[in-house]
Order: sequence, then structure tokens, then C-alpha cells
Amino acid sequence: MKLVTYTVKKTELTISGDEPAGARIGWVQDGHIVDVGFAQEWATLNKGLPITRVLPTDMLAFLESGEEGMEILFRVTDVLKGENPASLEVEGEPVAIPLDAAELAAPLPGPRSFRDFYAFEQHVKTARARRGLEMVPEWYEIPVFYFSNPHSIVGPDAPVEKPPNTGELDYELEVAFVIGKGGRDIPAERALDHVAGFSVLNDWSARDLQRKEMKVGLGPAKGKDFATSVGPWLVTLDELEDRRQGDRFDLTMTARVNGRELSRGNVGDLTHSFARMIEQASKNCTLLPGDLIGSGTVGTGCILELGTEVHRWLEPGDVVELEIEKLGVLKNRVIPPGEGREHP
Amino acid sequence: MKLVTYTVKKTELTISGDEPAGARIGWVQDGHIVDVGFAQEWATLNKGLPITRVLPTDMLAFLESGEEGMEILFRVTDVLKGENPASLEVEGEPVAIPLDAAELAAPLPGPRSFRDFYAFEQHVKTARARRGLEMVPEWYEIPVFYFSNPHSIVGPDAPVEKPPNTGELDYELEVAFVIGKGGRDIPAERALDHVAGFSVLNDWSARDLQRKEMKVGLGPAKGKDFATSVGPWLVTLDELEDRRQGDRFDLTMTARVNGRELSRGNVGDLTHSFARMIEQASKNCTLLPGDLIGSGTVGTGCILELGTEVHRWLEPGDVVELEIEKLGVLKNRVIPPGEGREHP
Repeated sequence: MKLVTYTVKKTELTISGDEPAGARIGWVQDGHIVDVGFAQEWATLNKGLPITRVLPTDMLAFLESGEEGMEILFRVTDVLKGENPASLEVEGEPVAIPLDAAELAAPLPGPRSFRDFYAFEQHVKTARARRGLEMVPEWYEIPVFYFSNPHSIVGPDAPVEKPPNTGELDYELEVAFVIGKGGRDIPAERALDHVAGFSVLNDWSARDLQRKEMKVGLGPAKGKDFATSVGPWLVTLDELEDRRQGDRFDLTMTARVNGRELSRGNVGDLTHSFARMIEQASKNCTLLPGDLIGSGTVGTGCILELGTEVHRWLEPGDVVELEIEKLGVLKNRVIPPGEGREHP
Repeated sequence: MKLVTYTVKKTELTISGDEPAGARIGWVQDGHIVDVGFAQEWATLNKGLPITRVLPTDMLAFLESGEEGMEILFRVTDVLKGENPASLEVEGEPVAIPLDAAELAAPLPGPRSFRDFYAFEQHVKTARARRGLEMVPEWYEIPVFYFSNPHSIVGPDAPVEKPPNTGELDYELEVAFVIGKGGRDIPAERALDHVAGFSVLNDWSARDLQRKEMKVGLGPAKGKDFATSVGPWLVTLDELEDRRQGDRFDLTMTARVNGRELSRGNVGDLTHSFARMIEQASKNCTLLPGDLIGSGTVGTGCILELGTEVHRWLEPGDVVELEIEKLGVLKNRVIPPGEGREHP
């Protein structure tokens, strides 16, 4: 299933005072978004699906409803199989709307925490070489990560402001996943049971800010904390089964800037698997539903690696598209500082 | 005001099925905790204080109620002046209970994010020297921080598990503050308006894990993410006025292990003030009510700095007390791995 958080786009026909409701969750089917809440209601009213629990309308609450919530949702989708959701209504509300009538937020707009790993060897080698550093044996032993800012998550198509104090804005092509079932000291063998789904992640980076602060030794913070885009949807594991071997996934990753392909790699290139990341992240501490975890950048997955001889740093107007097979395209446009401010 | 999050301790007299309610918020007065909600109710029922808004019973929701919530709370405390809260009741519930009948959680048990700075020069110098590193000029230019785990916050008196995979458990003596009013690009001059209050913070550290992962260059994560204790209360700025000069605070900081003083410093030793930290943290991104920020360790404020010739690494059974003038004593006992697990 492809889960989304969406709002209905305003149109010229929207009557003032009758603005679309706030963000809700849905799944993508045949070019439409089927609303989770309305679909459950329709299935109950029209097909007699018993309501054991009303499904939440926001993603964090849905994740917190755990396996029970996910099972109910799968039952709702089962009932709707064979129907054309676009033609269904409950109390005058359409059960599904066309994708282009919706504005997508990040699938999980407010994650409870955000860890980013550093798990693709080629990226780490090249990024370190650019700073004049050799690889260290510790990198091969333990999957290393840093915590980043959970409040700067934006969705697909959201404009990303170039921070006024950077001259070296970069993208990073990553795969991400969201914790569905919490836990502590989770062994790698059972780790994938704790994943709600996967998505594409762009860990926007200001290289000059990052270089400066990292000299102090605490890792990146201001170089990364202004924006992270995630989307377009959260793809559940069942959709990836045919590309999976154990805890490895064969999924091509590409990045394009203004239509030109700059990066190409594969999720299968991960040195440290998702399962190992979860094992490491949960050692001695608790993961909660709604924790977001990034893989780190795939080899060739940023301008820092490619070199500015291949592409200059990003500027307002640039459009960055990250694509991962089966997970979709995450597209964001860079805008000048201060424009299109969405946060208070 | 000294704000707390507390639960009523179970006693031998607690009737089964009649367990104390969940955590609530209160303030400390004359050896008692006055319950915020019951006090507001009492003030309304008995003194006619108009209820413009019912104050929340948990700290995050209270912080999110903003200046309005804080003003209402100050009006409630005004009404209660001259009363003996311990003698007051609403609907059979005592408005105040003795401190020793309460169990204190961290004042803000679930912060929305956690940043930790590195703002005391002596600590940074010594910690770097121990790793064979000189000071870097960047440290003096910008207050540098890292994000850490917001899910590992524990309160005063909470046992702290020694992670099974460390042989070098350490404490860190820090002062912390919590954001009350959110904002973005907050200038230093107005930064203290965004602080809800201050507290004592122990950034428990596993030095061997930290040393290993920091070789990779992303800063500390597993070396720090297993426990951070905060408390005993959140002290609002008005209580610190007589120790304040501009954005500097003259408050002695000490740490004792098993009763023996090991660390001594002063909040006034900060090279980068709280105001500068907020300016830096909010640059290009949004701070929200409920964000927790630590200062970094004061000079002499951990075993790493003192050297194991002064004190061995911490072991189960050790009691660590951190004290900051006007902010109180934060006391935690180290316990063996796996004992007293409070998290799922």
C-alpha cells in the first residue's frame, strides 16, 4: 500500500468560508487517493464491515494504532477491491479524489524523532576523501548515525528555502523508513517487523555551514536542520516483496536536477542493512511508532561527491527530483530565502 | 515558579484498583506540590477566579498554551497567596501534597526535540585534549550543538541503567532550558522571552561507545542516547532575576558521586550564552514549545575531564547528584543493565 498524508487543493471554485478540511490520510490507487476514514465509513455503511475501531485521520495516530490499525486498514482495502472508489460517496463526501486534486504533505509530517545513518560505503569514502580523510575501520563495524531535526520535515512539491547564509546548497539522495511498532534492543532478525513503510528522502545540506561546524567534532546540525523532504508516499513492505532478498532490496535510485540525471545507485548497495540500522538504533533505548530513519546518501547521490565541476551548488529555481523504484518521485523546488514560509 | 510533573506515590495504604492518577503538573511551595488543575478549580470555586481556559494537566500541553497559560497560572498562584494549599480541597482531592508523597518525573517528560550544546570552554578544551586534539577557532565563532534522543529523558530519582556494552559510564553536569514560545530566526536580544524555564541536566555518556562512533565523524549518538536525566523542576526566569546580568547567570554548579564532590563550576562560565544558543538553534528553522536544550558540560563536570585517577567510571550502585544553585538537586542511581526497565 502507498500511504499518504494529503489535503484537498483549493481551486478557483472553492467557496470562501468553505475551505478544504485539514490534512487526512489515504492510500494511492489507480491515480486516486482513497481516504482512509471515508473508505472505512463506506465499507461499514454499504458492506457491513464491522467497526472495531475508527481509524485515525492522521498518520502518527494511525501508526500508534499499531498492527490492529494496519489490519483494519487491510480489511477496508479488501472490501473496496472491485469497486471504483472515485464513484463512491459517504454523506456527500467523495471516498476518493484524483491525485492531482490533492496536495501531498510528507507521509508522516511530524515524526517523533529523526535519525540519519551513513550506510552507503561509496558516499562515505568520497565525502571523507573530499575532506582529506581516509576511511576508518569503525565505519565497517557499526552502522553510525546522527540525530537530526524532526521539525523541518517537508513534503513532495514543497518549496525548499535556500538558507540565506549558505553558498553551497546540496541535495542528498536517500531511502527512508518509518517505525511502526516500537521496541527496544530489537534483534536484526526481527527488525523489519518494526517498519511501517519506506519512502524517498532528501537530506538538504548546506556544505559550508556543515564543514565549519563539523570541525568542532559534534557532527552535522546547522548544515542539515533547515529542511528534509520526504515522500511522495509511505510504501508498505508487501509492495517490495519481489525486490527483496532477506533484508536486501534491489531498487534503483536516481536524482535529477532540472531534468538532468546526476546520481544513480541502488538500495541494494547498502553496506549496513535496514535491519542492522534498527538493531543499532534500538540498542539500549526505545524506538517509538513515528520515528523516522534515513539511510544516508547513496554513492554519487549529492553534489559534494560529484564535484562542482559536474554541477554547481543549488540555487533558487532549481528543481530536484529524487526517484527510487517502487517508492516514487520526490520533487522539490529551491526558492529564495524568506519566500513561501510555511512555518511560524 | 518551580514547575514539576509528578505522580502521587503508591503507599502501603493504596487500595488495589484505586491507584493514583497519571502524571499531572504542579508547582513547589513550602515543601508541597500544589496541583495546577486543582488549584485553578479551587480558585474558581472559592475565590471566583474566572476560568478563561482550563489549564492542561500535562507539561507539553501547558507549554503549548503559551503566554496565556502562563498568565492564568500566575493569577492562580496570586489567588492562593496567603492560603495554606495543604489544607485546601476540591471535590475531596487535596490541592497540594507533601513533596515526599510525590514521585517526580522529568519536568517535561517527552520533549519534542533535544539539542545539546558544547558551550563551556574548559570542558571542550579538556575533552579535546584527552582525544589528542587542539581547540579549533570555529568553536569560538559559533555555538555548536548536536541533536540527541528525545525519547530517553528520565526524571529525578529515576534509576539509570548502565548499558551492558559500556565499561566507561560517565555523568555530565549541565544546565538545561525548555522553549516556551516557538519561533524562527530569533535574535539574541529577544531570545530569553522564548524560555519557559531552566533545569539541571545529566547527559549520561558511555565514553567507549562515544569514542568509537565519533571516529566516523558524525558526532555522538549511541554514546549518549540511552539516558538523559532532567529535573527536579523547571524554574521560571523570575526566580533567577537576582542572579542575572543581561543574559548571564551567576549560579554555582556542583556534582557529587556517592556524596563526594567531584565537579564545581558556574553557569556564568558559559562562553556562549543561552541567548546565543537560541539564536543559533533557531537560525533557518523553527523552535517549538517543548524543545529541550542543554548547555553542554561545565568545566570539571565529568569523569572524562577529571581522569580516572580522580574517580573510576560509574558502576551500578553509584549515586550521582548534580546541583545548581536555585535550580535544585538532580539525583540518580546507576543500576545494572535490564533492571527497573520503565520503557516498553
